[in-house]
Amino acid sequence: MSLKDTLREIVENVDGGLAAIIMAYDGIPIDEVIVAETEFDLQLMIVEYATVLKEIKRAVAVMKVGKMEEVSITTGQVRVVMRVLNDELFAVLVMAKEGNFGKGRYLLRLKAHSMAEELG
Amino acid sequence: MSLKDTLREIVENVDGGLAAIIMAYDGIPIDEVIVAETEFDLQLMIVEYATVLKEIKRAVAVMKVGKMEEVSITTGQVRVVMRVLNDELFAVLVMAKEGNFGKGRYLLRLKAHSMAEELG
Repeated sequence: MSLKDTLREIVENVDGGLAAIIMAYDGIPIDEVIVAETEFDLQLMIVEYATVLKEIKRAVAVMKVGKMEEVSITTGQVRVVMRVLNDELFAVLVMAKEGNFGKGRYLLRLKAHSMAEELG
Repeated sequence: MSLKDTLREIVENVDGGLAAIIMAYDGIPIDEVIVAETEFDLQLMIVEYATVLKEIKRAVAVMKVGKMEEVSITTGQVRVVMRVLNDELFAVLVMAKEGNFGKGRYLLRLKAHSMAEELG
């Protein structure tokens, strides 16, 4: 299964799924599937969150609590789950506020290994 | 119910609950209940995560996606859920990796309003 197919499978099987994206920490998207228009600027959001994730990775490294695995951020309008794939890349699932957060997290975790393998 | 009682109720009713803390963004704990020793430096972790949360708050403000409500960070050893109480304070639940994440998030959300009221 291609990366795009995997991203599509994740986002289409979660109630409220808006987009699934593979990103580098520098904010560059590697692959993405966007299934719904958003009222906010999706590209701006994921670039800002990539910066945030880099900051968390730095903080986690000094704490000796294991490697960063997953970060989720909920705001008034949107939920975002980010899961680390390897040292350079992470997967992002963007969901509507009332979406199925538990299933979103589950699917992202379930597919993380195969996405990481696909990315070499 | 006092703030400490509420924190205790949250952390003692979640499988894997280690600590519940009310923090300011500058990294100063307002109140805390710690129910289990951790292998890592809990105080260092929450100070680092307060800095991270301030960074996320700043990023969210430029995105127009509503206010920051909840952030969770999972590493190899520990899960942390943070919920905004007001402009200055947030509540933190620290859990073992295999703890009941869903229930932890639920209890923190459920009690956020009363904690915010208690804090004036």
